[in-house]
Amino acid sequence: MKIEAIDLFYVALPKIERSADGTQDSLVVRVRTDNGLEGWGECDASPLVSMAAYVMPMSHSNIINIREALLGETLDSPEDVIRLRAKAGEYGLDIQQLDHAVAGADIALWDVLGKHLGEPVWKLIGHDASYKKLPYASVLFGDDPAETRSIAESIIKRDFRAAKFGWGPMGKGYLEDDIALVQAARDGLGPYAKLMVDAGVIWGDNVDAAYQRAVAFANLDVTWLEEPLRSEEVGAYKELSDRVRANGISIGIAGGEGADFYRSADDMMTNAGLDFVQIDVGRIGGITEAKRVADRAHELGIQYVNHTFKSHLSVAASIHVFAGYEEFDLTEYPAGESPLILGLTEPTGIFRDTDGFVRASEAPGLGVEANLDAIRQYQRHVKMEIDGQALFKSDEP
Amino acid sequence: MKIEAIDLFYVALPKIERSADGTQDSLVVRVRTDNGLEGWGECDASPLVSMAAYVMPMSHSNIINIREALLGETLDSPEDVIRLRAKAGEYGLDIQQLDHAVAGADIALWDVLGKHLGEPVWKLIGHDASYKKLPYASVLFGDDPAETRSIAESIIKRDFRAAKFGWGPMGKGYLEDDIALVQAARDGLGPYAKLMVDAGVIWGDNVDAAYQRAVAFANLDVTWLEEPLRSEEVGAYKELSDRVRANGISIGIAGGEGADFYRSADDMMTNAGLDFVQIDVGRIGGITEAKRVADRAHELGIQYVNHTFKSHLSVAASIHVFAGYEEFDLTEYPAGESPLILGLTEPTGIFRDTDGFVRASEAPGLGVEANLDAIRQYQRHVKMEIDGQALFKSDEP
Repeated sequence: MKIEAIDLFYVALPKIERSADGTQDSLVVRVRTDNGLEGWGECDASPLVSMAAYVMPMSHSNIINIREALLGETLDSPEDVIRLRAKAGEYGLDIQQLDHAVAGADIALWDVLGKHLGEPVWKLIGHDASYKKLPYASVLFGDDPAETRSIAESIIKRDFRAAKFGWGPMGKGYLEDDIALVQAARDGLGPYAKLMVDAGVIWGDNVDAAYQRAVAFANLDVTWLEEPLRSEEVGAYKELSDRVRANGISIGIAGGEGADFYRSADDMMTNAGLDFVQIDVGRIGGITEAKRVADRAHELGIQYVNHTFKSHLSVAASIHVFAGYEEFDLTEYPAGESPLILGLTEPTGIFRDTDGFVRASEAPGLGVEANLDAIRQYQRHVKMEIDGQALFKSDEP
Repeated sequence: MKIEAIDLFYVALPKIERSADGTQDSLVVRVRTDNGLEGWGECDASPLVSMAAYVMPMSHSNIINIREALLGETLDSPEDVIRLRAKAGEYGLDIQQLDHAVAGADIALWDVLGKHLGEPVWKLIGHDASYKKLPYASVLFGDDPAETRSIAESIIKRDFRAAKFGWGPMGKGYLEDDIALVQAARDGLGPYAKLMVDAGVIWGDNVDAAYQRAVAFANLDVTWLEEPLRSEEVGAYKELSDRVRANGISIGIAGGEGADFYRSADDMMTNAGLDFVQIDVGRIGGITEAKRVADRAHELGIQYVNHTFKSHLSVAASIHVFAGYEEFDLTEYPAGESPLILGLTEPTGIFRDTDGFVRASEAPGLGVEANLDAIRQYQRHVKMEIDGQALFKSDEP
């Protein structure tokens, strides 16, 4: 089949709050083929900046837009998707935003190919099986310990067996404030649920500050401390990780969501001493590149975990990536209430089974469908014009 | 003083050719302050995608545009520029294009601060002196050896004492074709001029292919082989570099222009075995971040060289970065004829002295001024609109 159209949908809540909540908008990408099929994908990225990467004028042979690279191309096999992902990367070699933007198209290509061939994406990318994963509810800390505890209690009421708390006041006060927040999360979850902490790069390059928290949080049975340091501080990560291991502190160090391309993730895995590498399929350039990271993590004995804070298009895409690795048994599962993000794939989604686990679907493609009504409801209509000529006008759902 | 406006100018030749020639368009950035001063900078990036990063709507607290981060801010000292660059990085933590886009503003901030304080940028960023650099004419290979030789001869006629040839047919045929091209360049330059070769990432991850060229080109007295491999192939670079050294092959391995942020350059310096690290100030987020790379290269004993293929705003900004390191004695100097790129700073520029060297200016700021007439002549007028409301309209020069 041939790729006939790549449609871009910028959707957003009417009012965007200034919090670390990525469920307030999204860029949804639809690929249409000449045999009437449609595939869907989603970027975790600035929608407008990413749209520009699909349509902007050529600057030279290494700055050519994504639509130009993909439209009219043949798509019949997994090798075609890999070839097209590489082609978009060559056309856009000097577009920094390329990876964030092309992620949505790459996911949509796998989805439509799966529908065409009648296979789930996890099979197409080389997995033999789709293993169950324990979903952890991914939420923000409350503004204080009391609110955090009540959030934790509500997570248990919703039958989650694992939760990650992040951002909010973490690291903005004193050590004892941070401990009180995590203690409140542990108290609310009870002793049996898994608890993870996301520090949102708050300690910059301060290894001592991060190490103090690692020790304190390990006492509260925290599985991992995520992004204690800025992504670029690879040497500091290594120092932290070495110190944690040398002192027998029982907590993992996690990071990697800031990796926008394969080598950046590989750098973190090879040089930062990570125990868990967290990859956002909507940032790192899609399923094709995320799968490379999962394969490499398997080789290195590091646990791959998805980073996901968008709709179930992204949840599904993320789980296909590492479906076949039984040892990668945890999955980030957005547990917020954003009507935009929930609505985007209603009534489909990756839902928990009666034991509380999720797994990648056996249905062709991603196994999750976009909801056109939600796109219509939340769509932001974009126009771009150069020298009086239309360059882009939002597509019709 | 306060930052009152950040103006964005997308300029381009009327017709863009599909070649690796980055002098066909540019994004020029002007910062205006409340005391009537102006600073200028330039990005080496897709203009439209980068403009979007200055004006796009907020997605959440880690996707906030560059104008929002900088407008109204205080700018009185070098510490302010460093603080503002960090602030833009935090506001745009999850905007992949951030570094390419903010580069222009960062350069403009240093320029306007220099004018305000009456100091050249190299002093403000901590150098004690501005040493001379040998400029190498940076050109593309001709389509065949004869054309390449004639380009080399024209470079010598223009009194250059060093030249770099890149892209074109290099690596697209057989080993002997590549050797013939480089032999032609050497013949045209004569035996005394320095010759560098830029392979434009053509051998991907093929260390053997790159090594064969390294050996052959060393016999033609080539100073460095640049980007023989894809940037992400850090392990392959290291293997190549180790093999070249172990066998006593007298040629340097160069790379780094693909580094869009500090850690990416540090990764190349630390793990790829580079002899020369080539940094584009218009991609890596401006003078502030490029200076960090120069300092680190100095520590590691790797030679820092600028990568520059835009106007003299970028040439000037690039040279300020490493002005005070006497041992970093080579500078990439665009030698093309693009009327756009030459016109953008006419009649100012960083010109060769009678001995053929260039150095960073002693004048306040960058020491190079933008030419408003050229901006008017080549400006592409952009409009972006969301839900019928104007988001951006090209600024008036």
